[in-house]
Formats: sequence, C-alpha cells, structure tokens
Amino acid sequence: MSQMVGRQSIVFDKPPHIEAMASIVGKKEGQGPLGHEFDRIVEDPKFGEDNWDAAESKFQNETARLAITKSGLSKEDIRYIFAGDLLGQLIATTFGIAEFEIPLFGLYGACSTMGESISLGAMTIAGGYADYVMAMASSHFASAEKSFRFPLEYSNQRPFSATWTVTGCGAVIIGKNTGIARIDGITTGKIVDFGVKDAMNMGACMAPAAADVIYRNLKDLKVDYDYYDKIITGDLGYVGQTILIDLLKDRGIDISDRHYDCGIEIFDRVEQDTHSGGSGCGCSASVLCSYILKQLESGNWKRILFIPTGALMSPISFNEGQSIPGIAHAVILSSEERKR
Amino acid sequence: MSQMVGRQSIVFDKPPHIEAMASIVGKKEGQGPLGHEFDRIVEDPKFGEDNWDAAESKFQNETARLAITKSGLSKEDIRYIFAGDLLGQLIATTFGIAEFEIPLFGLYGACSTMGESISLGAMTIAGGYADYVMAMASSHFASAEKSFRFPLEYSNQRPFSATWTVTGCGAVIIGKNTGIARIDGITTGKIVDFGVKDAMNMGACMAPAAADVIYRNLKDLKVDYDYYDKIITGDLGYVGQTILIDLLKDRGIDISDRHYDCGIEIFDRVEQDTHSGGSGCGCSASVLCSYILKQLESGNWKRILFIPTGALMSPISFNEGQSIPGIAHAVILSSEERKR
Repeated sequence: MSQMVGRQSIVFDKPPHIEAMASIVGKKEGQGPLGHEFDRIVEDPKFGEDNWDAAESKFQNETARLAITKSGLSKEDIRYIFAGDLLGQLIATTFGIAEFEIPLFGLYGACSTMGESISLGAMTIAGGYADYVMAMASSHFASAEKSFRFPLEYSNQRPFSATWTVTGCGAVIIGKNTGIARIDGITTGKIVDFGVKDAMNMGACMAPAAADVIYRNLKDLKVDYDYYDKIITGDLGYVGQTILIDLLKDRGIDISDRHYDCGIEIFDRVEQDTHSGGSGCGCSASVLCSYILKQLESGNWKRILFIPTGALMSPISFNEGQSIPGIAHAVILSSEERKR
Repeated sequence: MSQMVGRQSIVFDKPPHIEAMASIVGKKEGQGPLGHEFDRIVEDPKFGEDNWDAAESKFQNETARLAITKSGLSKEDIRYIFAGDLLGQLIATTFGIAEFEIPLFGLYGACSTMGESISLGAMTIAGGYADYVMAMASSHFASAEKSFRFPLEYSNQRPFSATWTVTGCGAVIIGKNTGIARIDGITTGKIVDFGVKDAMNMGACMAPAAADVIYRNLKDLKVDYDYYDKIITGDLGYVGQTILIDLLKDRGIDISDRHYDCGIEIFDRVEQDTHSGGSGCGCSASVLCSYILKQLESGNWKRILFIPTGALMSPISFNEGQSIPGIAHAVILSSEERKR
C-alpha cells in the first residue's frame, strides 16, 4: 500500500482536497483575458502601502484572509501555512502572514513555489498531520523588476523573450473533505540546468525542468499523456512553450493539443504588450485559484497535471555569471466527480 | 491514533531516525572549542572557488556527498532533499546540490532552516512517502556579511550584541532504521515579532520566537522542562540567551540549568573575539551534525529539544525600516537506547 510511485512521484491512498481558494491580482492582470475569473482586482499597484515589497505582503495578507473566509473556517483551524515568494529571504511572505499567528513552513522554489506548497500541504494532510493547511504564493511586477532586473525608472527596453511578472497571489485551503478538486498525487522536480544564462529568457531556462518532470510523471504513473485533459505549466510563455513541446516530442510525447500555460493565458499578447507572457509565482498561483480550479469544479476538465515552473537565480548569481537552472513541481488534480 | 498533539506539535507513531550525519566547517570554526567534533575543516574560506557564494555551494555539495557516503547509500536511494541557506533565492543550495539530481524542496526559514528541513524530512519518512531523505542547511561568514551587513573591506566595528556567521554546513540522512538518534516529534513555530529593528542584535529578534515554541512544545506534550536533558537553541548568542531565559521565567519555566546554545558553544568568547557568539543556518546545522548527535548516539543525553532560531529580514526590508521578526522550529531527538 505504498504511496511512493516510481522515482519521484507520490499517489495518495487517501487523497486530500482543495476545499477553498482565493485569488487577488493587480490592475493589468484584471484587464487581461482572465480578468473576470479572479476574486478581486486591486487598481493601486502599491495597495495603499509605502513600497512595492509591502504591497506584495498585502496581496498575501488579503488573499490568505479571503481564502480562510471562503472556507468557512477560522484562522485557528489552519494548522500550517506553506508559503513563499520571489523576494530575497521571503519578505513578502514574512510581513504578509505574520499576523495570522499560524505555524509557517517558508518555501523557496522560484516560480514553482505554488507546486511546492501544494505538494507539501497535501503530504501533510494525507499523512494525518493536520486537518487543514493553507498553500500560497505571490509575486509583484515592481518588486520583482527591482530585485532581478532594472529599476522601473530606467524604462529599459524588454526583449521579446522577456516575460512580465504577474502582480497577484493565489491561496488554497487543503483538507480532508470533498471540495473544489482532489489532489491525487505529486511529482517533485529536481534541478535541471541546460546552461542558459539569459535572465530575459526565463522560458528557455525553465522548459527543460518542466519537460523532465512531465516525462517523469508519465513514467512513474505508467500512463500516456492523454491521461490528462490538460497539462498546465506555470509561466513558460511563448518561447518556453515551443521548447517544452519540442523537448517532449524528442521523447515521443506530443502534448501540443492539451498544453496550457498560465503565463500565456493571463495577458493578451497583442493588446497588453507583455511579449512572451506572464511569469512569477503569482502567475500560476492566481490562475490556478480562479480559472483552472473552476474548470475542475464544474467538471469541464476531469483530470489535469499542474506544473508551476521556476528559474533558480538571484541578482548575485546572475552577476557572477552563473547559469539559470530550472525546477518544476507537478500536482495531479482531479474533478471531484471523477472516480479514482 | 492521531499524530497531532496540541496546537503546533506532532508526535510520530513510527518515529523516523537520523541514520547518518556530516559536518564541514571553516577554519575559524575548526579553531573553536568544538573543532575536534567536525568531520572536516576547510582552511580556505573560498574552498577553491572564485567567490564566497560558490564557496558556500561547495560546502553544501561536499557535506551532502559525505553524508551519503557515511550512510552507505547511493544518491539514487535519497528520494528528496530538504535544504536551504541564507542567501537571496537560495543560490548556495541551488548550485551546491544540483549535480545530485535528487528531487528538491527548497526551504527558507532564515537560521531556523535546519529545524524546518528535519521537520519536513521526518514527516515525509513517517508518512511513508520515502525510505530516505536528506535534510541540510549552510551558511558562510563572508557571503552573509556581504548580503546582510557591510562589505568585509570596510572592516567596520561590530557591536558586542553582534554575532559571527558560521561558515559551515550540516546534513543528516533520515530513514526508518535505527541509527544515530530518533526523531520523536516536532513543534513548528509561527512568526513572532517583538518589533526589534537592530540587525546587529539578532539574538533579541529571535529569543521571543524560541521562547514561544519551547513553551508551546511543553504545553502540547503536557510535560515539564525536565522532560529534556538539554534544551538547545540555534544561535541566540549571549544576549539572546539572557532574553530567552527571562521570557520563560515570566511563564514560570526555568531552563537555565539545561539550556545550550550552538552559537555560544561554537566559538571561544575570549580567544576568538566573536562577541555574542556564532549564528547562521550553518551554526545549528554543523553543531547538531557533530557534537549534539554524538551525545545522543553515546547515550550521554537521553532526550533533547533542538530549536534552530531564525531572524526574518532581508537587506531590503531592513533598509525600508521594517522590524526583524523571529521564527523557530523545534525537533524532539532521543537516544536510540531510550524506550519511547
């Protein structure tokens, strides 16, 4: 009755459930094709705070609060929070969730963090260690640009391979009761380094890690790609999507008819001038906690593989000439209607 | 048969075990009172690399390699790594362990990371999700000073409340078989913010979080402080130790006869001019994976509470005038000889 499957996957004997979700995004995300899907759109990029970092903390705070409210629970019912963001030393998370006084496991997986937080949260529920946990991740365009690229005041040119960091946060409450969707299993990614060094082409950095974890998921579960209605990456963008599909074709797998990328879908390529698409932990987190989970809740999709994708770099490693390795963490999500 | 105990603790029905350990430290740590306890002392602060960050990665790489060798396993046997460091975006971890190609859960808990990594690693083993995992954390004096305080070239004065970041790494292999020590349970900390803003007095930032998680552990388990032979904090230093003991006395608990702080013990206060003591994730990690676990292995200590302590700050949050909240994660470790 082992829950370990293959080299990197877990299939839960007693699958945990996503019982509630919340998403709050910024103005630009609200103007995009998925704008009507989110719980709340915040027009002010500083969210009433003094700086971008404090604004991102407020996105986490308000999204966590909303998820708890929608679950019908109180904060005392949530035994652990699994959370992270892109900023150095996770300051958006620290100052965002401190006031809830809930035991915290701080996570860093770059933009794969929502996959990591749901994975550990689901393991915690299925292991009998908690009745309810929260998993969340956030990003903010301005705090990320300032940290990783150029001060916004430079108004520098962005190459077409560049993505636009999503301002937003997504949070789920995971528990034991039937809810929005079921978490059937996970496949945890390893670091994959193809030697790409271009911080303006993160899709190329992350696509090999996404391909690796998708391939490993299919092998571990001994299923074909059509086991999933959709195979959903976090923020590869247009450039990364092409690379992902090519890499999997090299291994005899063609996911082109069912691949969906949150970064591609969250912005309108023509109208919104975001080049390769959206990115950031908040991209996959906010799209999961709105459009994607609604498709599972309604039964439009029966089973999906959700794979947030991360580019592992810091301003220091970049300036020291290091490559940008990728990592991706996959979560198997099913409609509650579907029998196991 | 629930494993949940009280509000924040888990007691394992089938406790996992620390089966192997490794510690590698720098020259100054090797010259300290615990110098003879570590597996290896590296004289070159750059460990043969071009910069401090790469040097810290090499500490992680070599320590992980040594832990695997000492366990008698191969890297393919290790299902997950739980690891982190102090640097922005965990670059010491990323570039340190990538080549092992082991699925990674990246963690950030500031200097509490070794408590977080052992907690999640133990939950993973006890939950039946893996046969073996590795938990590790590192820090490096020079990469941390550069990130958090001043360039070393300034040779600035350090106040007496300041601690000295340990250069070192500790790693454990956790599994199901009797080994060096048993992991009986954990108490996961929440963020505690007393409003301290002095990055040169991290002991004061962290002591309230340590006091909170120790108090919670005793309440959750319904035991008195003498349940433990030693109550061991990570890196409070002399200043933080005084605050911790006072805060617990206010709650009617006097741990002064059994408190041990890794930061106090790793350096000689008079000879080594480290002021309040050692700090950094590598401090508690390297002292655990040498002196502390040897005391449990030999049966000198029967049961301890190990509590790495973290100060949640970044250079950005500090410059923006934010406080420095603390977090601490406790792990209950027992000698294998002791009956449960």
